Amino acid sequence: MNDLPHCETLLLKLDAGVLHVTLDRPDSRNAMSLAMVGELRAVLAAVNQDRNVRALVLRGAGGHFCAGGDIKDMAGARARGGDAYRELNRAFGALLEEAQQVPQVLIAVLEGAVLGGGFGLACVSDIAIASTTARFGLPETSLGIVPAQIAPFVVKRIGLTQARRLALSATRFDGLEALRLGLVHFSEPDAELEQRLQQVLEQVRQCAPGANATTKALLLASEDEPLDALLDRAAGLFADAVLGSEGVEGTTAFVQKRRPKWAR
Amino acid sequence: MNDLPHCETLLLKLDAGVLHVTLDRPDSRNAMSLAMVGELRAVLAAVNQDRNVRALVLRGAGGHFCAGGDIKDMAGARARGGDAYRELNRAFGALLEEAQQVPQVLIAVLEGAVLGGGFGLACVSDIAIASTTARFGLPETSLGIVPAQIAPFVVKRIGLTQARRLALSATRFDGLEALRLGLVHFSEPDAELEQRLQQVLEQVRQCAPGANATTKALLLASEDEPLDALLDRAAGLFADAVLGSEGVEGTTAFVQKRRPKWAR
Amino acid sequence: MNDLPHCETLLLKLDAGVLHVTLDRPDSRNAMSLAMVGELRAVLAAVNQDRNVRALVLRGAGGHFCAGGDIKDMAGARARGGDAYRELNRAFGALLEEAQQVPQVLIAVLEGAVLGGGFGLACVSDIAIASTTARFGLPETSLGIVPAQIAPFVVKRIGLTQARRLALSATRFDGLEALRLGLVHFSEPDAELEQRLQQVLEQVRQCAPGANATTKALLLASEDEPLDALLDRAAGLFADAVLGSEGVEGTTAFVQKRRPKWAR
Repeated sequence: MNDLPHCETLLLKLDAGVLHVTLDRPDSRNAMSLAMVGELRAVLAAVNQDRNVRALVLRGAGGHFCAGGDIKDMAGARARGGDAYRELNRAFGALLEEAQQVPQVLIAVLEGAVLGGGFGLACVSDIAIASTTARFGLPETSLGIVPAQIAPFVVKRIGLTQARRLALSATRFDGLEALRLGLVHFSEPDAELEQRLQQVLEQVRQCAPGANATTKALLLASEDEPLDALLDRAAGLFADAVLGSEGVEGTTAFVQKRRPKWAR
Repeated sequence: MNDLPHCETLLLKLDAGVLHVTLDRPDSRNAMSLAMVGELRAVLAAVNQDRNVRALVLRGAGGHFCAGGDIKDMAGARARGGDAYRELNRAFGALLEEAQQVPQVLIAVLEGAVLGGGFGLACVSDIAIASTTARFGLPETSLGIVPAQIAPFVVKRIGLTQARRLALSATRFDGLEALRLGLVHFSEPDAELEQRLQQVLEQVRQCAPGANATTKALLLASEDEPLDALLDRAAGLFADAVLGSEGVEGTTAFVQKRRPKWAR
Repeated sequence: MNDLPHCETLLLKLDAGVLHVTLDRPDSRNAMSLAMVGELRAVLAAVNQDRNVRALVLRGAGGHFCAGGDIKDMAGARARGGDAYRELNRAFGALLEEAQQVPQVLIAVLEGAVLGGGFGLACVSDIAIASTTARFGLPETSLGIVPAQIAPFVVKRIGLTQARRLALSATRFDGLEALRLGLVHFSEPDAELEQRLQQVLEQVRQCAPGANATTKALLLASEDEPLDALLDRAAGLFADAVLGSEGVEGTTAFVQKRRPKWAR
């Protein structure tokens, strides 16, 4: 792995192939500052090519995930005018794109405020575990602004039908409703969040890191790439996987009724 | 606002920034006639550019939303041949496209029959409130015809997986099932429909009209426009919104802990 | 109908316009062999143009639907190298494409193992009826390989949000969860599977075969074809259907309050 970047707004902890990334601005409910956006992007870039980091766990310090954009950065941009706003906003969209595409399994643990930009981040996770008491919402239009970078990721996450109601009524909802809407995969009482995370990590560890990275890329491509071309390409990836070291180890372990190396 | 058109098949009532549109052909369960299609399109065109009309509430008179296409118009078209059918059908699709894109928040209140074309109309609403006793269905193929203009909007609304079963088995279902399928956002006993509508309108009033219109357009665009281009464009819209009058009012009100002007 | 092909791996039974296709390799839990792929494709080709076959019912012999790819074929391909793997894999994708597009209503009855390739087949059905005790899953990456041909069909079936969790954690789940995820339309106790199937077939029989075929093609096209072009084309299909023999019979039967010929 490339060295992890030094971070002011994030806590990083690498443990058994899992990089735990904690948004660490609890005084502002981990509001997404331009500095935080930059540091998250640097972390994603550092791990991108490293199959030894198999999963990322993203969460917030102090009982909140992320309450949205940082007001101070907004004020700073105001002083500098429209271009500054545009760049600030677009950088967050770039973060969402990069997080969406990161080859690792991205797991989000969602507590407290999951609003605006925090909602957007939740939308690019592979596996989302919410506290039943988390508070989700897209409050932008109630502030006279727009969830500009977030909107496409919300539509991709939960579909147009649910996205339009949430965004156009600025409604708040909890983890159970997030589960019902298909925004998250689990909704757990606070006391059981950690246990669910451990169970999910245990499942992810059963999966070969390279195969997971290839599969994730295929899933993401399938929404854009024409089907025939994708299936042709996928057949080549299948052959590569079967003949590669993971495929040999995995099928051998299966026949020998033992765990493959990556699952130990 | 442009003057509202004179209508024979619709009741129109403008109240506090909300235009209530009632399909008013109760003798035929508000069957969608060519005249009704034309009047609905004229109403949508009249309000399109007017941010003082913030929401449209669409419902049916006499306990039904809309039972589908009008048999008499069909008979008239038969006399005139294939081109007449094609034009009749295509005009309804144009209505669906225009209703989908209308900048206002489109709220549908769904009671009684929500069939065929009525089902299609429900599919382009931003917020759909069903009576638990409403009867939904796509009966076309059981009549030997096809839900031609409706099909793409059903797929966009509830996805291919659910759409294919409903359309290919002509099954009927109630409001609770419509909620489970993600076709509507609320399913309420008849006695509580009005209360839910008021609550939804109250939420929509918290949202700035221009910001909502921009957000709705972004959500709709995100299903077609390439992501990078959309995010670039969205960043400009974000800057415009923050620096515009709604953005200034909204963020100022937030700091001052008061309601913004549009929410009073 | 073209003659049905002679099959070694499938049981075929044509009954009252419904072709029952049973995967019949119970010793390997109906693992998808290259021979089975070829025979399924031949069956689909044989019925494609025949409106007298109105529905296909696909299920597995011996209490399982299909446990995935066949290990022996995989071993055979290994001996022949990468090209053989690629062709083996791509042929299965071609089967999924052809099954997705078959004009008949494709009904899947899902019991026991519904894994890997079996999961993929379930994803192209129009109506899926699961046993509550069925076992669904995408185990590929836990074997070091990738669900290459299957991935796009899973995303199309249940959306990216659910597909990514299932594929990247190789989790197993039952029929009730499959219903919740929108993968199947019904989840029934084993004792009631047959009754549900009969009810679904009865509903499908109410629908005109040609109208259903046209409608299915429109639903599938709506995910790829630009909306305006699709609606233009659909209006022509609507006119053809109304003026065609099914449209005349269906609307006449409706007025005469009798069942149309196809529903008797």
